[in-house]
Formats: sequence, C-alpha cells, structure tokens
Amino acid sequence: MGYKSRDNRVFAVWCVVWSHIISISMATQGQVITCKAAVAWEPNKPLTIEDVQVAPPQPGEVRVQILYTALCHTDAYTWGGKDPEGLFPCILGHEAAGIVESVGEGVTNVQPGDHVIPCYQAECGECKTCKSGKTNLCGKVRSATGVGVMLNDGKSRFSINGKPIYHFMGTSTFSQYTVVHDVSVAKIDPKAPLEKVCLLGCGVSTGLGAVWNTAKVEPGSIVAIFGLGTVGLAVAEGAKTAGASRVIGIDIDSKKFDIAKNFGVTEFINPKEHDKPIQQVIIDCTDGGVDYSFECIGNVSVMRAALECCHKGWGTSVIVGVAASGQEISTRPFQLVSGRVWKGTAFGGFKSRSQVPWLVDKYLKKEIKVDEYITHTLTLSEINKAFDLLHEGGCLRCVLATQE
Amino acid sequence: MGYKSRDNRVFAVWCVVWSHIISISMATQGQVITCKAAVAWEPNKPLTIEDVQVAPPQPGEVRVQILYTALCHTDAYTWGGKDPEGLFPCILGHEAAGIVESVGEGVTNVQPGDHVIPCYQAECGECKTCKSGKTNLCGKVRSATGVGVMLNDGKSRFSINGKPIYHFMGTSTFSQYTVVHDVSVAKIDPKAPLEKVCLLGCGVSTGLGAVWNTAKVEPGSIVAIFGLGTVGLAVAEGAKTAGASRVIGIDIDSKKFDIAKNFGVTEFINPKEHDKPIQQVIIDCTDGGVDYSFECIGNVSVMRAALECCHKGWGTSVIVGVAASGQEISTRPFQLVSGRVWKGTAFGGFKSRSQVPWLVDKYLKKEIKVDEYITHTLTLSEINKAFDLLHEGGCLRCVLATQE
Ligand SMILES: NC(=O)c1ccc[n+]([C@@H]2O[C@H](COP(=O)([O-])OP(=O)(O)OC[C@H]3O[C@@H](n4cnc5c(N)ncnc54)[C@H](O)[C@@H]3O)[C@@H](O)[C@H]2O)c1
Ligand SMILES: NC(=O)c1ccc[n+]([C@@H]2O[C@H](COP(=O)([O-])OP(=O)(O)OC[C@H]3O[C@@H](n4cnc5c(N)ncnc54)[C@H](O)[C@@H]3O)[C@@H](O)[C@H]2O)c1
Ligand SMILES: [Zn+2]
Ligand SMILES: [Zn+2]
Ligand SMILES: [Zn+2]
Ligand SMILES: [Zn+2]
Repeated sequence: MGYKSRDNRVFAVWCVVWSHIISISMATQGQVITCKAAVAWEPNKPLTIEDVQVAPPQPGEVRVQILYTALCHTDAYTWGGKDPEGLFPCILGHEAAGIVESVGEGVTNVQPGDHVIPCYQAECGECKTCKSGKTNLCGKVRSATGVGVMLNDGKSRFSINGKPIYHFMGTSTFSQYTVVHDVSVAKIDPKAPLEKVCLLGCGVSTGLGAVWNTAKVEPGSIVAIFGLGTVGLAVAEGAKTAGASRVIGIDIDSKKFDIAKNFGVTEFINPKEHDKPIQQVIIDCTDGGVDYSFECIGNVSVMRAALECCHKGWGTSVIVGVAASGQEISTRPFQLVSGRVWKGTAFGGFKSRSQVPWLVDKYLKKEIKVDEYITHTLTLSEINKAFDLLHEGGCLRCVLATQE
Repeated sequence: MGYKSRDNRVFAVWCVVWSHIISISMATQGQVITCKAAVAWEPNKPLTIEDVQVAPPQPGEVRVQILYTALCHTDAYTWGGKDPEGLFPCILGHEAAGIVESVGEGVTNVQPGDHVIPCYQAECGECKTCKSGKTNLCGKVRSATGVGVMLNDGKSRFSINGKPIYHFMGTSTFSQYTVVHDVSVAKIDPKAPLEKVCLLGCGVSTGLGAVWNTAKVEPGSIVAIFGLGTVGLAVAEGAKTAGASRVIGIDIDSKKFDIAKNFGVTEFINPKEHDKPIQQVIIDCTDGGVDYSFECIGNVSVMRAALECCHKGWGTSVIVGVAASGQEISTRPFQLVSGRVWKGTAFGGFKSRSQVPWLVDKYLKKEIKVDEYITHTLTLSEINKAFDLLHEGGCLRCVLATQE
C-alpha cells in the first residue's frame, strides 16, 4: 500500500486493527506459521503428515486456514505419477473450504475472517481470456501455478526446515494453512457449513456447470452420462434441473444405479451386460442417439463412445473426465461432418470467484445437493485411507477435517 | 392425382396443357427419355458417354433437364474408389442447374419449366431432423439415396438397354436428364444464369455456410483456413462478410495466395516453409491461437492441426473436408477440456430447398461471388479432361455444358 495516500494508510491501519479484534487470532499475521500438512514426497508413496512452514502472503496473496478438504481424482492422478507436470515433493488438494487468516499487500477482495473456497481456476477479470466473455479460463497466474510456485517471486510459500515444498493447482489444501493468489479465492456466505460446501471447489460444480454452461441442455433433452461418480451424479442433477426428459446413466458398476436415481438418472446401462458397443446400445434405445452426452471417467475409448452415441445433426458430447497423459481421443471425421459437436469443460465453465458464491447460495436455498455426495468423513491424518476409499465403488466424496 | 376431386383434375389437365404450351417441349412427359450421360463403370476407369434411358418420374419425383454441371471433389472421391459406399456403374455429379422437364404424382413444389438446382442434401420439412430446427440433415430419402436408388420403388430410373445404372447422392447430374426426389430440388429465380449458379449446389454454399451457420463467426474474429480450393475460398469470402479481422490462408501451394486475396484472405502461410508444426506457427502469430479454423482439404492430420491452432477457452474448428474412408482424427482430450470445440459441416448447414434460392438471390444482388470460382468451361463429352483438371492447382471449378 506504499503507493497510496496517507488517508488510505490510516484507513488500512484501522481495518487491520478492526479485523484483528474480530478475528479469532491475528497473532500469526506476517509470521511464518508452522502447521500440519500431508506431503506427497514422490509418486505413489503414502503421504506423510509433516510440520510445514507456511510463509506469510506476499502482495496479491491470501493465507487461508483450511478447515475441511475433500479428495478428488485429480489429486490421485498427480499422486499416482500420471501427471507429467506433477512436481514433488508437493502438497496436494484442491476441493476445500476455510477462513482467511491474513492477506498480502494490495489484496482487496477478501480480508481476514472471510469464509472462502480456494479456486484452482483463477478469475482475475482483467486478462485476455477473462475479458473475452467466452471462457472461465483465466490466464493471470497460470505460469506460476503450472510449476508449483507463487507468481510474485516465483517461489513456494511452503517449506520444511528450509527445503521448499511445491504448491499444487494453486490451492494445496491438504494443509492446515495454505497460501493462494487473491484471484484464486472465492468469498462465500459465512452461514454456509464449510464441511459441506468444500465440495463446491471442484467435483459438484464441475458436473453442474458441464450441463448448464458448457452443454446448455434444454428442457426435453435426452442425456447420457458415462461414469456415475461425484462428477457424473452432479451432471445428472444438472440435467434434471435443466428439464431433461431422459437421463441415461452408464457405469460398469451396477451398484451405482440405486444412488444415481436420487440424483436424477432415469435409466441405467451397464456396458458389461451388452455384446454390442455401448454407443450402438444407446443409439438403439434413443431413436438415433442422445442430444447430449458427458464423459465423467477419464477413459479415452469411453470418450469416443460418448461422442458416437450422440444424435447426428446436433448431438453434443462434453468431455469432463481427465485422461491419463499421452492418451488420445479419436473418431472418424464423418461423426463431426454429420453434425455432432465435441467439447470439453474445465470447472464446468464456472467463473470461480463470481460464481462459486452463487453456487453456495443455491445450496443454502436447497436448490442443489451437496451433503448427498459425502459418503465418508475422516481427519487429515487419515488421508492415505481416504485415497484408498477413492478407488472403492461405495465412496463418492470423503471430507477430511484438517484441524483435528 | 387420382385421389383428387374432379375439379382438381380439370385444373391439373389445364395446367399440363398450359405448361405444354409454354415449355420448350412436353412431348417427353411420361415417356422414357434417351439422352447422353457420363457413366462411371468402375472405380478409376475413364467415364464413357453413353445413351442412357431415363424413366419418367414416379410419385414424389422430378425429372430435370440438366443444362450445366460442375465437378466437385466428392465426385472424384467416389470415382477414385475411396467411398466404401460407392456403387458402380453409376452416374456421378451433384453440383448443377437445370429445368424441370416433368413431375411425378403428388409433386407440388416445382412444375415443368421451373429453373432448379438439384440438392444432394434433401429438405422435407417433416422428418425428425428437419423438424428439430437444429440441423439441415433431412432423413426422408437417405435410405434410398445412400444405396443409389429412388425411394418410391427402391429402383433406379437410369438404365442402358435394360441394365440399371445407379444414382449418386440423389442427384446424378453428369447426364442430360436426371430424376430426383421432390425434396431434393430447389426452385430458383429464372433470371439466374444457370451456367454460374450451378456452383451453389455444393462447394460455394458449403464454404459460406460453414462460416455463417456452423461456426457463426463474429466481427473482429481471427480465422484460419486450411486449403484454398473453392470451398476454402468460399470460407474466406464468408469470413470477410462476417467481419473477420484477420483471415489466414494456409496452403501447400503458394500460387494460391494471389487468387485468395480476392476472396478475403489477408495473410498466407505455406506449411512447407516452416520447420515448426503449422499449429504452432499459427499460435505464435495470433497471440495464442485463432477464434475459428476450417479444414477444407480432407486430410486428417490437417484436421488435427486446425483444432490445435485454435485459442484455448473458445476456439472452434470446423471440419469441411471429406477424408478418405477409414481414416480417423485424433487429439489429446485436454485440447477440448481446455475449451476448444470440434465441429463439422455438411452443405454448410444450409437447408437446401429453402436456402439455395436465397443464395441465388444474393448472387443476383452481387452480395456473393460465384463467377470468380469458374476457371474452366468444357462440355460433358470432355468430362475426363475435367477430372484431370480437378487435380491441377490452377483449377477451382470447371463447368460442363451438357446440351452441347
Ligand atoms: N474437467 C474438470 O474440470 C474436472 C473436474 C473434476 C473432476 N474431473 C474428472 O472427472 C472424472 C470423474 O471424477 P469422479 O470424481 O466422479 O470419479 P469417480 O472415480 O468417482 O467416478 C468414475 C465412475 O466411472 C465408472 N467407470 C469407470 N470405468 C468405466 C467405464 N469404462 N464405463 C463406464 N463407467 C466406468 C466408475 O465405476 C465410477 O463410478 C475424473 O477423471 C476426474 O479427474 C474433471
Ligand atoms: N462437408 C461438405 O459438405 C463438403 C462439401 C463440398 C466439398 N467438401 C470437401 O471439401 C474439401 C475441399 O474441396 P475443394 O473443392 O475446395 O478442394 P480443392 O482440392 O480444390 O482444394 C484443396 C486445397 O488444399 C490444398 N492442400 C492440400 N493438401 C494440403 C495440406 N496438407 N496443407 C495445406 N493445404 C493443402 C491444395 O493445394 C488445394 O488448394 C474436399 O475434401 C471436399 O470433398 C465437403
Ligand atoms: Zn477436482
Ligand atoms: Zn483472468
Ligand atoms: Zn460437392
Ligand atoms: Zn426431412
């Protein structure tokens, strides 16, 4: 704030004093915080809970006390060594909620005590992509978050005895404290239960947005959803609220159907129970194909099936799943020449800072489900168990309490 | 018309008499016509001009005297044996104009003497796809045209001494007379010069429509066009009229640039003059990629480049070219997850019977080019020379006069 007038300084000092009084503890401001975090030292090796030093936020940064974090497949993907850009050692985690502990110079969108959801998809409002009005992909901090550091000085705010630990997705929520860019944190209604709305940081929002923003499903549409995990179920809920007439759920795990019904799936197909390719099975039972399909698995051959089960002339397929690196999708170009459209979505096309608070409000008004995706709750120290759960059919989301 | 009232019959008879008087000759109505046609006996063997018997139109059919026909790559593609659904012997040709000679029972949209453009893309207005309002792909006669016959009796109207010759694309315009379905013929302004507007039956319309209907290019957009043949140049013209700020033409034949300038191309790139992949060359000179790209060649690796040179977040790539059968497109799914859209177009998304007359009117009002694509004119008997010309860089469209 050195470049501001004296009046502003006085006001700033007053603000700091005031927030000092109202917040739980401001004693940590400007200090290095030592706290617990789950560190991934190398791919596939169990995470270990460590005492980590978290440096204070620099200009444009926010230090957040994480209260709850869930696990998502992208964490497992990077931990599993499948992400060629994955850097180790690092602190994973990107689906969380917490409270702002302190802010760096120039930060105006949040202040200590604010309830927030860290957003791996930034929104600066000023870069070329933000200003395009056509996408939610902000470019402002990408060069830093892509290589596990902060933009201001190109360094990490995490260290253990002086040895830096990389950030992950600009969020690193498997820690009691994390530092994020101010463009990567959404301020939400403090009435929202953080142990629930943490899910709006990734999976649930992605599924809803894939339907509402990316596909723009209209009433009466026939929808196919491949993969009925959290993301696929959120797609089902989005499709139901969009007025889809039929929501066909496809999963190789038949146990998924019972739970899927509660989220809006009206029909279920297990590809394993059919000899014909799944796209043909779907075309046959939909008079030529579906209006919209969503791949929520991360399997490139399912991505092809999802495209090809679309109705010629207009059927649109949205890729939501993240495939293993190096894998490619393919199809005959005639599939597109005859009118199908192939798209994808990142964070469901939601502009994070402006729309995550809106999603939280929808949850508070009971217009969208969140609680129903939480099948397990554990603590941060049980994180390896939570990773195991991720691969079990019965688990949708496992939420970890970090301040045990 | 047997099911109509006597009044209608009297009127019908009066109509027939009247049209008999005004048309050049109605003596052929209801008769088999023997005329010249270029027959493709087998793949890659030169076509031969034959005396072909053309049966009268059955219910829902129209017999058209073809006056001018151009050649398009789809003719060469089938003739070259690359179309697995290609049937021989057949009469190729689908970019033409002529005059209705006679109509079958129940035909109401055209009458003898009408100037028409045969449309390989039908428009019935009544089938599921026509009524969807989302596509120009009519399904009404597809089952017949796909296998070289007419819908009414599943047979061909062409024969040579009793041996049937297959139809092609529901048009077969390399003949002095052809029979088409009534849903596959557009009535146009008789003031339009048929030797020019025949081009609106395929290539020019496809390129314009790819921009206006499929991509919906907005003013200020940056556009890349791969392949500067007739289709690519029509895309350039469409992009120019849509207000594109930059139109980048990509061709391996540098001679194309001079002519391309006249159609709206503002920059030219020859991939052969660069070591880097063409998508990277384009990304580098457009601050991250183009808003819209069009593949107008039929090469699957260029289709990939066309997608990948699009700007992340919103860039849309439209496949216009027809690839050799069996070939597949591929890319990393991340290309789509990060916001690119992959589409295709058939006949530029134009509804044929309703919009081809509108295109003809635009040409008459000098709002779109047509003459400029015609680089050669020959007669039907010179058709093999015309096929050779198709593969020469200097040829855009060659128009054949059929009534020599
Ligand atoms: N694009 C984005 O922004 C974004 C955001 C969040 C998650 N994701 C991705 O979405 C995907 C789904 O996430 P999730 O948390 O719901 O995963 P999940 O593992 O909980 O669910 C996947 C489901 O797919 C089913 N499945 C597996 N193989 C199948 C096959 N061949 N056919 C049919 N069903 C099959 C499984 O039984 C499971 O029910 C992951 O790839 C994740 O990385 C993407
Ligand atoms: N989708 C449809 O409805 C539809 C309609 C008409 C035509 N088509 C197809 O559109 C395509 C183009 O038709 P056309 O008549 O303009 O063809 P054309 O042969 O006249 O033009 C193709 C151009 O591409 C250039 N080219 C070839 N290989 C290239 C490469 N690797 N990189 C860059 N440029 C390259 C050639 O030099 C040429 O200028 C054909 O495949 C045709 O079948 C599709
Ligand atoms: Zn996630
Ligand atoms: Zn931005
Ligand atoms: Zn054509
Ligand atoms: Zn139709």
